[in-house]
Amino acid sequence: MKPKIQTFDLLKLASGDQLSLQVYQFIGKKSDKKVYIQSNLHGSEIVGNAVIAQLIDFFSGLKPEQLDGEVWLVPICNPIGTNQRNHFFATGRYNSYDGKDWNRIFWDYEKNCQDLEGFVKAHFKLDSLSIQESFLKQQKKAFTKQLDKIQGSSSAPLYEQYRYQLQSLSIDANYVIDLHSSSNQGIDYLFCFPGKQEESAKYFNIDYGISMNTYDGDAFDESFMKPWLALEKKFKELGRDINVDRESWTLELGSGMQMNPQSVAVGVSGIKNYLVKKNVLKLPNYSPQITEIKLVSRQQIKSYYAPTGGMVQNRMSLKHTVKAGDKLYQIISFNKQGKLPEIIDIYAENDGFIFDVSTSYSVNQGEYILALLSLE
Amino acid sequence: MKPKIQTFDLLKLASGDQLSLQVYQFIGKKSDKKVYIQSNLHGSEIVGNAVIAQLIDFFSGLKPEQLDGEVWLVPICNPIGTNQRNHFFATGRYNSYDGKDWNRIFWDYEKNCQDLEGFVKAHFKLDSLSIQESFLKQQKKAFTKQLDKIQGSSSAPLYEQYRYQLQSLSIDANYVIDLHSSSNQGIDYLFCFPGKQEESAKYFNIDYGISMNTYDGDAFDESFMKPWLALEKKFKELGRDINVDRESWTLELGSGMQMNPQSVAVGVSGIKNYLVKKNVLKLPNYSPQITEIKLVSRQQIKSYYAPTGGMVQNRMSLKHTVKAGDKLYQIISFNKQGKLPEIIDIYAENDGFIFDVSTSYSVNQGEYILALLSLE
Amino acid sequence: MKPKIQTFDLLKLASGDQLSLQVYQFIGKKSDKKVYIQSNLHGSEIVGNAVIAQLIDFFSGLKPEQLDGEVWLVPICNPIGTNQRNHFFATGRYNSYDGKDWNRIFWDYEKNCQDLEGFVKAHFKLDSLSIQESFLKQQKKAFTKQLDKIQGSSSAPLYEQYRYQLQSLSIDANYVIDLHSSSNQGIDYLFCFPGKQEESAKYFNIDYGISMNTYDGDAFDESFMKPWLALEKKFKELGRDINVDRESWTLELGSGMQMNPQSVAVGVSGIKNYLVKKNVLKLPNYSPQITEIKLVSRQQIKSYYAPTGGMVQNRMSLKHTVKAGDKLYQIISFNKQGKLPEIIDIYAENDGFIFDVSTSYSVNQGEYILALLSLE
Amino acid sequence: MKPKIQTFDLLKLASGDQLSLQVYQFIGKKSDKKVYIQSNLHGSEIVGNAVIAQLIDFFSGLKPEQLDGEVWLVPICNPIGTNQRNHFFATGRYNSYDGKDWNRIFWDYEKNCQDLEGFVKAHFKLDSLSIQESFLKQQKKAFTKQLDKIQGSSSAPLYEQYRYQLQSLSIDANYVIDLHSSSNQGIDYLFCFPGKQEESAKYFNIDYGISMNTYDGDAFDESFMKPWLALEKKFKELGRDINVDRESWTLELGSGMQMNPQSVAVGVSGIKNYLVKKNVLKLPNYSPQITEIKLVSRQQIKSYYAPTGGMVQNRMSLKHTVKAGDKLYQIISFNKQGKLPEIIDIYAENDGFIFDVSTSYSVNQGEYILALLSLE
Repeated sequence: MKPKIQTFDLLKLASGDQLSLQVYQFIGKKSDKKVYIQSNLHGSEIVGNAVIAQLIDFFSGLKPEQLDGEVWLVPICNPIGTNQRNHFFATGRYNSYDGKDWNRIFWDYEKNCQDLEGFVKAHFKLDSLSIQESFLKQQKKAFTKQLDKIQGSSSAPLYEQYRYQLQSLSIDANYVIDLHSSSNQGIDYLFCFPGKQEESAKYFNIDYGISMNTYDGDAFDESFMKPWLALEKKFKELGRDINVDRESWTLELGSGMQMNPQSVAVGVSGIKNYLVKKNVLKLPNYSPQITEIKLVSRQQIKSYYAPTGGMVQNRMSLKHTVKAGDKLYQIISFNKQGKLPEIIDIYAENDGFIFDVSTSYSVNQGEYILALLSLE
Repeated sequence: MKPKIQTFDLLKLASGDQLSLQVYQFIGKKSDKKVYIQSNLHGSEIVGNAVIAQLIDFFSGLKPEQLDGEVWLVPICNPIGTNQRNHFFATGRYNSYDGKDWNRIFWDYEKNCQDLEGFVKAHFKLDSLSIQESFLKQQKKAFTKQLDKIQGSSSAPLYEQYRYQLQSLSIDANYVIDLHSSSNQGIDYLFCFPGKQEESAKYFNIDYGISMNTYDGDAFDESFMKPWLALEKKFKELGRDINVDRESWTLELGSGMQMNPQSVAVGVSGIKNYLVKKNVLKLPNYSPQITEIKLVSRQQIKSYYAPTGGMVQNRMSLKHTVKAGDKLYQIISFNKQGKLPEIIDIYAENDGFIFDVSTSYSVNQGEYILALLSLE
Repeated sequence: MKPKIQTFDLLKLASGDQLSLQVYQFIGKKSDKKVYIQSNLHGSEIVGNAVIAQLIDFFSGLKPEQLDGEVWLVPICNPIGTNQRNHFFATGRYNSYDGKDWNRIFWDYEKNCQDLEGFVKAHFKLDSLSIQESFLKQQKKAFTKQLDKIQGSSSAPLYEQYRYQLQSLSIDANYVIDLHSSSNQGIDYLFCFPGKQEESAKYFNIDYGISMNTYDGDAFDESFMKPWLALEKKFKELGRDINVDRESWTLELGSGMQMNPQSVAVGVSGIKNYLVKKNVLKLPNYSPQITEIKLVSRQQIKSYYAPTGGMVQNRMSLKHTVKAGDKLYQIISFNKQGKLPEIIDIYAENDGFIFDVSTSYSVNQGEYILALLSLE
Repeated sequence: MKPKIQTFDLLKLASGDQLSLQVYQFIGKKSDKKVYIQSNLHGSEIVGNAVIAQLIDFFSGLKPEQLDGEVWLVPICNPIGTNQRNHFFATGRYNSYDGKDWNRIFWDYEKNCQDLEGFVKAHFKLDSLSIQESFLKQQKKAFTKQLDKIQGSSSAPLYEQYRYQLQSLSIDANYVIDLHSSSNQGIDYLFCFPGKQEESAKYFNIDYGISMNTYDGDAFDESFMKPWLALEKKFKELGRDINVDRESWTLELGSGMQMNPQSVAVGVSGIKNYLVKKNVLKLPNYSPQITEIKLVSRQQIKSYYAPTGGMVQNRMSLKHTVKAGDKLYQIISFNKQGKLPEIIDIYAENDGFIFDVSTSYSVNQGEYILALLSLE
C-alpha cells in the first residue's frame, strides 16, 4: 500500500523561502476512522520522527485490506521549532521570537463553544455517531472562523497561523497521537485523559502514564480531547451515557535531541498494538498485548530546582529508586566572597524513583535538576 | 532627605556571582502610606531607570516634612532580564532559559484566597483601614508559604524564587507603579484598572490609557490589585461599599532599548503630580494638574501581523491618523519560485491612529508589524 | 527587458524544507562584462533588499540595447541570517549555531594561490583580457576543489557549503557590490580598496568612504578582490602595469533592521550612476555625476565602549560634529553596594563627527556605544 | 595549608551587579615557580570546576613544605560564558552579544613583540633565568599598555577588558593548564605544543594528545606559550639553545555540560602527577607515573558534517574503532516534495576511532556529526 503524500504551505519566511507540512496518508479499504500521528512539535523532541519513518515503512508493506480507516502521519510537524539552534543545541521548545511554548498555543473548542447544553438537548436522541458528526461539524465551523482573521488585513500572529494549519489536519481524527520526549533525559511514559481512555493506555507497551487530572492549557492533546470530554460530560449530566470514539495521547519517548533505539522500538510497537486493539490495523496471528501500566497524577511528580547556583555532581541516575531522606545530588557552590567552595547535599523529600534528569550539570539558582516520581 | 538604601540577595548564578535587588527608601515624617515604584521588569524596557534616577535626585532634595508616607524605588528590578543579550539587542522580555514572559509569572492572591466570603463576613463591620490591615495580614500569610517551598529540598523554579523576592517588597504598598515601555516603538500610555482608579488616571500627564476589562494573567500590576478588587467586590455583593486605598499602575513610556527624554520627563512629572494628588507629596505652590486622558479597552487596539514573509516599506509612522481603507504599509515579498518580487499593500481595517510599530522591518510570516488604536 | 530568474538549492534544513538562492539576471545585447549585486548577507542589514527590488523594476523597464553586459541581482543572499530571530530582533549577523560572522567566512584565492609568480611569468606578454581570463580559469579550478570536499563522505561545515554556493555566482564578475548597513544606526558610506578603485568611488553618490588599508579577513568584498589586487601587484613587481577590470564594493546604507527611504534612494541612484560610468548602463541624456567622497582609513574611526555597565543618556546624535573634550554621552551606573546611582560623563578623544550609534541604550561593561569619525 | 583567596572585579553588568574572578592561591615554602590552572572558559565545559574543587581540597591538606612554588586556581574563569543559557543548555562557547568564541580572543605577545631579534642579541650571554625574567618584564610592559586603552574615554570592547583581567593572573606563570572538554561528547585528551613539551605530556595520565603543528589563533594556551616558543626559536637561530621553563596545556576532559567522574579523576590525578614530575609538588612515597600518550596532528582528526538536513540514527558510538568504508551513521532525510523519507548511509573515509560525537541527532545541512581520529 502506497501512501498518498500531500504537502501544505505552512509559512513564508522573510527570505522568501517556504516552510511546509507534509502528510503521509495510508487509506485502508474502509475508511470511516482516522488516526492522526505527529512528531517533533517541540524542537529537541525528535524521537518520534524515527517512529514515524518506521511506521511509513511498516504501513507501506501492508495490503489495504489490513487497514480499517486512515492513518495520517506528520513527521517534523513544526519546522520552525525543529530547525531552531542556539549553539549546537535544539532549543525550539519555545519560539525564540516570542517565547511561546509550541505546545501551549492550540485552539480549544471547549473554550469557544457557546451553547453546549443547547447542542446536547437538540441532539439528545440521536445515535452516537450522528451526534459526533454533528458536533464535529459545529466545531469545524467555529474553527474555520480563525481563517477570516488570518486572511484579514491585520492577519494573525505566527502561532495562530501555525496552529490553524496543524489543527486543520487533525481536528476530525478519532485517535490522535502526539510523539514527544523529555527536553532533558527521561524515561518512556505517556499522558492520558482520565476516564475511559485509561483502559486503552494498557496497549502502548509503556510502563508509566500520567492521568491528567489538571490541564496545562492549550496543549495539542488537550485541545483535541477537551471538547469531546465536555460533550460526554454534558450528556451524562443530562442523563445519557454516550460513547464518543475519540482518544488523544501524548507519548514521551526518552530523551531530548536523541532517538534512543529502545524508545523508538517502544513507540513503534506500542502504536501498532494500540491500532490492532482499536480494530484499525489487522495483523495475521497477532493479538494485542496488555502492559500493566502504572497511572499516576501530575502531583506525584516532584521537580527539584537548584536552591543556589553551581555545579551538580553525584546525582542519582535515571530510574534509580530512592527513599525519602536519601541524598539525591550535590551542588558545588562557588562564591565571590573570598570563601572556599561549598558542597551542598540535597535529599529526597519522598520515596520514589528518578523520572527525569537535566542534561546540564551547570545551574543558575532555580534551574531544573531532576524529577522524582513518588509511587505512593 | 537621604534615602535608606537596602540591598537584597536575589539569585546566585552558576558562576558563584550574586545578582541583587537594591531598594531606595524615602521615609517621610508620617509613614502610614507606602508607594512602590519599579522599572525594567522587561529587559529592553529601560526608560523607567532614568525616571527612577531622577526621582531619587528629586526626593533627595526634599525635606522629610514634604513626604507623608514612604516611597520605595526599585530600578532595574529584574537583573536577569536587563543583562540578557542576543547580538546587540536587549532580548530579556522573556527568560531565555524557559521562555517565560517576566510579566506573566506573579503570585496572585485572588487565585489563592480560599474563603473570601468568610473573610468579608468576619470583618463586615470593621472600619476600612482595619479591614485592609487584616486582609493584608492574611494575604502575607499565604504569600509567605511560598518560602517553605523555596527553602525545601526541591526548592522552586527560578521564576518563583524571583517573584517571591520582588513581591515581598511591594505586597504591602498602597500605590504600585510599574514602569514599562513598548518592546518596539510606542507612544506613552498607561494601564489602569476599571472603576474608581480611572479617576486617578488623570493625574499622570498621559493622554491615553487602557482600562483593563480583561486580564493577561499573573502580570505584576494585576497580581497586586486583583485581590483588593475582589475584596471590594465581595463587600459590595454583601451590601457594603468600602474604600480600599490601593492602586496599581503600569506606565508605558515610549520605545524599547531607549530612554527618550520626553518620555522620561512625562514619567517623572506624572508620578510627582500623582503623588501630590494622593497627598503623599507636598510641594509648595503646586496644585495637581489634570490631563484629559482617553481611556480605551484592549479591544480597541488592533495588532497587525505579516500575512506573508518579506520586507516592510512605506509604513505609516507612529501617531499617524488613518482612516479605514488607508494603506498602512507594504511588504516586498520575495520568493524562490522563479518569480519577480511582489509588492503587497496592506490596508487599515478601522479608523484610528498608529499606536505602536515594530523595530524590525524584516518579517517572517506572522510577525508583528504595528498596532492601530481605534478611537470609536 | 525581462530578467532570467534562476533558483538554486542552498541548504536543506533538519525539517526537510529547503532554503534557496534566487538570482535575477538581466542580460544585455553585448554580455562581456558581469555586474554582481547582493544584499542582506548580515541578517539585520535589510536595506539592500529594497535597493535590489527597485533595480529589478528599473532594469525591467530597459531595452537590451541599454545594457552592455550582464547584471546579476541576489537579494536576501543569506536566508539563514535573514530569518534568524531572538525576540523581535534580527540577530543574524552571526550564525547562532557556531557564532561565525557571515561576512568573515569566504574563500580567498590569494591565500590558496600557490605559484602566483609562476603564473605571472607564464602570462607576462599576453594582453590584459587574456591574462584575466586565464587567471580566472585557474582561480575557478582551485575554487571548485571545495566541491570534492563538500560532496565527500565527511562533507563540510555549513559555512563552507554556503560560501561555495554564493561565491559560485560571483567569482567571475567584473564588478561586485555587496549591500550592507550598520547593525546599529549609521550613516551612508562605502568600503573601497586603495588604489585605482578610489577613482570609481566618486560615482556612488556617497559622501564618505573607508579605504581599506587593512583587511578584516575573509570578508565577501575582500575574497573577491584580493586575488586580483595580488595579480596586479605581482605584475608590477615584475615590471608591467596591467589593467585589471575588476572592482569590489561594500555599500553601507544607513541603519539595521530598517530600509530608510533616503538610504535606499542613495543606493539605487549610486549604483545606476556607477554602472553608467562603467559603460555597462546606457541612459539617454544622462552623464554620470561625481560626488566628492571623503576617503578615510579604518584608524580614523574610533569606537567607544562602555567603561562600566548601566544606561546611556544624553548621547550626541548621529552626524553630530564634536570637538575633542566635548561630552559625548553619560552612563547612569547603578550599583548593588548600597550607594546612589552615579552619572558618568564620557568625553570625545578627538575632533570628528558621530558616525554610528548603538540601537540599545542599555549596556553591560564593554558593550558598544558609538563610533566617532575623526576627520584629520 | 590554607589558600590565600583573592577576588577581582571583572565586569559590571547593565543591572549594576558585578561579575568577579576569584583566585585560590596555595603558596609553598619556596615560591619561585608559579602554576596557573583555570576552568570553564567555554560555558558548557564545566568539568574542570570539579577538578579544581578537588585540587583545592587536596592542596588544603598539604603542608607548605610539600609545595615548591605557587599554585593559582581559577575555577569558572569566565562567568559570562558559564551563566549564559538558551533553553536548558549552556551555550556560552561564544558570547551571545558579539558571537566571539571565548577562546579566540587573547592577547598574543608574539604578534606584538617588535624587535625580538634585538632582545635576543641584547640578552644573548645571560643565564636562562635572567633571560626569562627580562623577557617577561618586557612582555608585561607591552601587555599593560592595554590598560591605557581600557581606562581611556573610548575604553575597549568587552572581550579586551575580559582578557586583560584573566591574562593578568596568568602571564607570569611557568605552567599553565586550561581545563576544557568537548562542547559535545568526547574522550579525554590534551593539546600540547610540539617540541620539548611533548616529553611532559606523558605525565597527565591521558592516552591521546594533539601536537599543535598549526594554531587556531589567539587561544588561551597559544597566547601564553607562543612568545616563549618564539624566544627559544630566535635564540636557536642565533646559535644558542636556551631552556625556557614554561609549558602550556589544554586538557579536554570528556563531554560538555557534564562532569563525568572518570574524567574528573583523570584531571585531578594527571595534574598531581605532572606537578610531582615538575618538582612543584612533593608527595611521600610517590614517584610520577608515565602514560604512553599517542600524539597526533590536527590533520588526523576528521570532522564529519551533515551532507543534508535530517535526523541521525545508527551512529557508531564514542571510542568505536572503524575501518575505511564502514558505515558511520545514517540520516533520515525528510522532504517537502511529496516523496518518502530517505535513509542516507555515510561511510568512513579512513580507518580510525570515533573521537567525538554531537549531542544533537537533529541536523541542518552542514551541522557537525562526529569526528574520527585516524591513527595512521
